[in-house]
Amino acid sequence: MEHLSVANAQQCILESVIKLDAETVRLEQSLGRVLAEDVRANRDLPPYDVSAMDGYALRSADLKNIPATLAIIEDIKAGDMPGKTVQAGQCARIMTGAPVPQGADAVIRVEDTQASADNRVQINAAVKPGNDIRLRGEGMRNGEVVLTPGTEITPGVTGVLATVKCAQVRVVRHPRVAILSTGNELEDMDEPVDPDKIPNSNSYALMAQVQALGIEPDLLGIARDDPAELAEYLQRGLRFDVLLVSGGTSVGVHDYVRPVIESLGVQMKFWRVAMKPGHPVAFGTTTNSFFFGLPGNPVSSMVCFEQFVAPALRGMMGHAKLYRRTIAARLTHNVKHQPGRTEFVRVILAKEQGGYVATSTGAQGSGMLLSMARADGLMVVPAESTGLVAGEQVTVQLLDGTVFQDEAGFNK
Amino acid sequence: MEHLSVANAQQCILESVIKLDAETVRLEQSLGRVLAEDVRANRDLPPYDVSAMDGYALRSADLKNIPATLAIIEDIKAGDMPGKTVQAGQCARIMTGAPVPQGADAVIRVEDTQASADNRVQINAAVKPGNDIRLRGEGMRNGEVVLTPGTEITPGVTGVLATVKCAQVRVVRHPRVAILSTGNELEDMDEPVDPDKIPNSNSYALMAQVQALGIEPDLLGIARDDPAELAEYLQRGLRFDVLLVSGGTSVGVHDYVRPVIESLGVQMKFWRVAMKPGHPVAFGTTTNSFFFGLPGNPVSSMVCFEQFVAPALRGMMGHAKLYRRTIAARLTHNVKHQPGRTEFVRVILAKEQGGYVATSTGAQGSGMLLSMARADGLMVVPAESTGLVAGEQVTVQLLDGTVFQDEAGFNK
Repeated sequence: MEHLSVANAQQCILESVIKLDAETVRLEQSLGRVLAEDVRANRDLPPYDVSAMDGYALRSADLKNIPATLAIIEDIKAGDMPGKTVQAGQCARIMTGAPVPQGADAVIRVEDTQASADNRVQINAAVKPGNDIRLRGEGMRNGEVVLTPGTEITPGVTGVLATVKCAQVRVVRHPRVAILSTGNELEDMDEPVDPDKIPNSNSYALMAQVQALGIEPDLLGIARDDPAELAEYLQRGLRFDVLLVSGGTSVGVHDYVRPVIESLGVQMKFWRVAMKPGHPVAFGTTTNSFFFGLPGNPVSSMVCFEQFVAPALRGMMGHAKLYRRTIAARLTHNVKHQPGRTEFVRVILAKEQGGYVATSTGAQGSGMLLSMARADGLMVVPAESTGLVAGEQVTVQLLDGTVFQDEAGFNK
Repeated sequence: MEHLSVANAQQCILESVIKLDAETVRLEQSLGRVLAEDVRANRDLPPYDVSAMDGYALRSADLKNIPATLAIIEDIKAGDMPGKTVQAGQCARIMTGAPVPQGADAVIRVEDTQASADNRVQINAAVKPGNDIRLRGEGMRNGEVVLTPGTEITPGVTGVLATVKCAQVRVVRHPRVAILSTGNELEDMDEPVDPDKIPNSNSYALMAQVQALGIEPDLLGIARDDPAELAEYLQRGLRFDVLLVSGGTSVGVHDYVRPVIESLGVQMKFWRVAMKPGHPVAFGTTTNSFFFGLPGNPVSSMVCFEQFVAPALRGMMGHAKLYRRTIAARLTHNVKHQPGRTEFVRVILAKEQGGYVATSTGAQGSGMLLSMARADGLMVVPAESTGLVAGEQVTVQLLDGTVFQDEAGFNK
């Protein structure tokens, strides 16, 4: 089987993956989910013309000569219904969100007025008809579709769902994800430290990557390098929507995973991708499940997850945006590269005038998990590149911890 | 009290806010948390010199004439200990992560070899000493501090924590956050639809904004415009680390919140910020609690949360990065602006050659929650601006749903 390009491997995966079916969740549990059905407005909003400011509802024609003094006939607060009609020379004190009374055609904000004695107010500025009035239905109209299937539930969407009182929301269900590590050399979290063994970090790093997508995965533990034991674990894993197996998929003669996974009926789509790190990465399908074989090296495993598993899981959850955000950055040093494989270099980003600069975290050995922990992103070196030079503009895929920055970043 | 600039208001908040104390959580619950103590390596990693590839461990001096044929004396897989010493003319078949045997000083990958009969292998390339060997302690050294307090637990950090077998992690505790809405006009989620009322969306949008920071808030419900009822709700809310109150803080005479909150011993730091939307936004402190008075308008409330509450909560959780990431974008249209207030314009971002373009979501009325739901970010119009023109470079603060994009964004 040939070495696929990263793009072809992603395409192969996304052609296999389908959006999962819908389920109903409580609004409080729905952040980050994807809507599975139309959501309609159940009333006009605002339900009547309302004031956009705290101030006075008045007749704009009364403000031909400024200052003008008007008689206050009523106080209207949000939730009140006006009792009177505003006549010439009159106004009503009004609060933000309160209904505009009959007769009034504009609101003036309190800052442009001056209270005077005897329930009168001096108006210090003229306004046009409609000033600071939010019209009935301006926000949404009864029956109108306000959210469509495929919409990701962000806090703004949560606000809209609450507005139309969706206490229960139909969303695309989340995939059930199982994580399995393989290898005799691995020592699990609850075992005592044996200096000759390698701690099982991959299961937990993968767990965190899955959690970062909003999914709580199941950790199946460690399968030893024994075909019978491995078959048992893999069979359990293939009952999930997605099975992630770390280790055991390289070209060595001791890799049991490939024959065992094939004997369990998994149709393998690819075993190799022309990338670094992450070369030995596999993908296969059954009628109900997707199998990803990830490299045993911690960094390789994480990089492959970002390129292949994350887009697949996002696709199953119904998202349109499948890939981590990329930014342009200026490279601070030369990078050697032999044409052939797409390389992902862990980098630290810094802001500079007009953009970002990217600097390698240092040694890029695939065992260097610490450098993954320090990285802000993955710089992409295209497969055909013969090397990059300092000052060149590069593309950096942002990793998880980069939604926030240390400076506000704008002139305020 | 004067109108603070956004920068001064943020500074005022961050001077008051202190990092919370530490607590212990399970590794599985720690994603996104901030470490409260040093984490040290508990062994050398790798624990011995290991192979970085599947291939053959050999003596580099044996490869002076290529191809060379070597005798395979042993199979070493990860988790095995080598039993033999590699002598001149010999090699050991070795798997990624397996210990390099005595005598061998390099590894050659299997792709550069060709198996032959009688347990011999033909080597088709020369390698230097040390080739594809990961040295003992190269990843981390026993006793070395590998993670320091203040580190955010990203998936890479989770991997490191698992590597040093931190099943329990000391992290900065999360603030307990209460959310209260105020106003007679509000109708809560479980009440029947009354077309004359306004649905309480703010509590839920704020809930989602708090959840997006990894915190599960408590919703206290709706306090009506009655001083006694309000006092009771506010007193309950001030038992939390942070109390968010939506509505009731504008300049109108019916706003009960200010006098009641002051009578409860809250020391108010500010009531007004020179920004749009969000003008009436308040911040105060007690010895144990922080109070934020947010505008009743849904969009204003969300924008103020992003500028003031999110950095405060991030600071309490021990994060160094307090602000949402900003990017530069090219504006696609003119924007009017009167000098005076910093304005936050909801925009949609699109990629173009060399960067992003930003386009307003349309009408920016503060009741337009739908436009907040559609926005990718908030474009910042500096307070002193006299207007922006199409083609100008602007700063956009990325909102929550923008961690992912629809294209991989790089040449792969």
